[in-house]
Amino acid sequence: MNESNTNPNGLQASKIKLTQTVQKGGCAAKVAAYELREILAKVRFPEAPPELSVSASTFDDAAIYDVRKFLEKGKTSLVQTLDFFTPIVDSPHLFGAIAAANALSDVYAMGGDPLTAMGILAFPMATLETSIAVEVLQGACDILQNAQVPLVGGHSIDDDTLKFGLSVTGIVDPTKVWSNAGAQPGDQLILTKSLGTGTLMAGLKRQEFSEEDLQEAFMSMTQLNRVKPDLKDQVTAIHAATDITGFGLAGHGMQMAKASGVSFQFFLNQLPVMTRVWEALEKGFLTKAHRTNFEYTQKNSRFEQVSELQKKILFDPQTSGGLLLSVAADQAQNVVDKLKKNFPSTRIIGEVLSKKQEDLIWVP
Amino acid sequence: MNESNTNPNGLQASKIKLTQTVQKGGCAAKVAAYELREILAKVRFPEAPPELSVSASTFDDAAIYDVRKFLEKGKTSLVQTLDFFTPIVDSPHLFGAIAAANALSDVYAMGGDPLTAMGILAFPMATLETSIAVEVLQGACDILQNAQVPLVGGHSIDDDTLKFGLSVTGIVDPTKVWSNAGAQPGDQLILTKSLGTGTLMAGLKRQEFSEEDLQEAFMSMTQLNRVKPDLKDQVTAIHAATDITGFGLAGHGMQMAKASGVSFQFFLNQLPVMTRVWEALEKGFLTKAHRTNFEYTQKNSRFEQVSELQKKILFDPQTSGGLLLSVAADQAQNVVDKLKKNFPSTRIIGEVLSKKQEDLIWVP
Repeated sequence: MNESNTNPNGLQASKIKLTQTVQKGGCAAKVAAYELREILAKVRFPEAPPELSVSASTFDDAAIYDVRKFLEKGKTSLVQTLDFFTPIVDSPHLFGAIAAANALSDVYAMGGDPLTAMGILAFPMATLETSIAVEVLQGACDILQNAQVPLVGGHSIDDDTLKFGLSVTGIVDPTKVWSNAGAQPGDQLILTKSLGTGTLMAGLKRQEFSEEDLQEAFMSMTQLNRVKPDLKDQVTAIHAATDITGFGLAGHGMQMAKASGVSFQFFLNQLPVMTRVWEALEKGFLTKAHRTNFEYTQKNSRFEQVSELQKKILFDPQTSGGLLLSVAADQAQNVVDKLKKNFPSTRIIGEVLSKKQEDLIWVP
Repeated sequence: MNESNTNPNGLQASKIKLTQTVQKGGCAAKVAAYELREILAKVRFPEAPPELSVSASTFDDAAIYDVRKFLEKGKTSLVQTLDFFTPIVDSPHLFGAIAAANALSDVYAMGGDPLTAMGILAFPMATLETSIAVEVLQGACDILQNAQVPLVGGHSIDDDTLKFGLSVTGIVDPTKVWSNAGAQPGDQLILTKSLGTGTLMAGLKRQEFSEEDLQEAFMSMTQLNRVKPDLKDQVTAIHAATDITGFGLAGHGMQMAKASGVSFQFFLNQLPVMTRVWEALEKGFLTKAHRTNFEYTQKNSRFEQVSELQKKILFDPQTSGGLLLSVAADQAQNVVDKLKKNFPSTRIIGEVLSKKQEDLIWVP
């Protein structure tokens, strides 16, 4: 390769041969059929509902799932989302459980009911024992069982680093979708889980925290964002919703404010934050996303009396974070009270303003 | 790490800390929001149908797609599949196109109509220019446009090696599903595309073939397995179907024979094979899958006068391979004639026998 083939951004499309970027020796190839069967044979899968007539139990074919019964209830729209990532925790079972709860979250955030899930598994066959793949899948299946969602298929490859996630399909009444575009001036902003998983998991990776230190975060990340059953009487009061994940409170808040054509004012002192998060941020346990989330949102943010340390929690990337709900003011306290039972961190953390110069205004 | 922590299969689940298996420095992290937007802004997406009310244009949220109109036609079942892999060709656009055609194939193989697709992108931001990601996505979107399927969302991560694929959802009348369990003794077995992509792409990776040499294979791998429009008068004659992919003709043939409780007899001299495939196999351009597919199927195979070279094509892993159809004998020639126009390699390659000791019988 000569100089003219490179630039600061990497290799040029016109010069690179993609097959030469892939390592030899079977990396990132399909996991062999018999290896896969051996893995899957040890996993206890979620119960299959009668709607599932063909399951891709080989993790390789297509599944058939009948949606007829939902349609009669007006649930005629599919809700679809897909997410996967590398391990953010040490325990394989916990990793699979978090990845599953995280992937299901987007369906709950739209007001939908998840129906089916397919697995996305990249597994280093050469360096990790297959029992680890079994545990990752079991962690996911345990969460799916809790959500009453069958694992209907998926795909696995032999890769250099472990990655896992799900493609999830849910169903929703199209007239009852919680979009992120419905926030109205005067609404109260409610967050259902504490912040801080990004910095805490960065500390775990640096081995500055043990898994024992981080039980609160693990409980939070494996909790399903299934809030609808608790809010049956407040359905019409929920004007907009999103789940807080990789772009942090600032990034997802900005997306929701922009989509709704409003501005959000957040009260920093009201933010629910996990134990040891301030310590972790002070020690500088940060990720690339802390920086990129700051860059993504800074031009659209106004900070009033906000310390540098406080800012870091706004950009902290969440995994399987809580829902941010925009709720009619007269129902906001009711919503908090209903959710507190299952989501004890739930708080009103801000309010919706008519569109200002900045999308996000951060006050003490 | 001491000796007791290792075994020939890798690290034990109880000892490994998964976070320590992931490289530092942002590898395999989420692609930053602004980087992703820059990439997506340059892609021409497939047309969005009116059924798609919320599109995950940020590649990050959930999509909403209304299926009401299909239900009235009795198409009440979802068909779901997911596939992704590393580059098997050098051109990014071609790679994306093949990955898309390959992922859609499972839906066609079930007799379904694909409705939506979500992207799975692992991209090495540090070593490849983002224009390559644009081209991969464009290749996929061009195929999706041809299939009239919108890209409704997906997920991207920064990873060491490029990987791409799709999660696809289709819809089907549950009474008209082509399962792989319906093959009946007396049926003729029809294959719609030539074999050989595994060995040819292995030769490409070794730089023994140029992309110019392999146009036949590229045309085949980017062709949609959309055979139903050509078979309107033969619908009930199609008793079973599967698509031939990573497990090769032997692996997928065996799965179909087993599922149907029958045996398949294949006529080796009738197999459609791409140009230069015998040369490639003779030169030993093989993949790990040639071996694992042999291991997967050998106990269930009887070989009668089959050369070692011929065997290799049976285990050749196909990417976006053809459909294997089990067709009522009196309609088999009709099916071939109808398909020949769009799938010129289509041939009768075998027949279905009542269950024998072996699932697969290979004769000259």
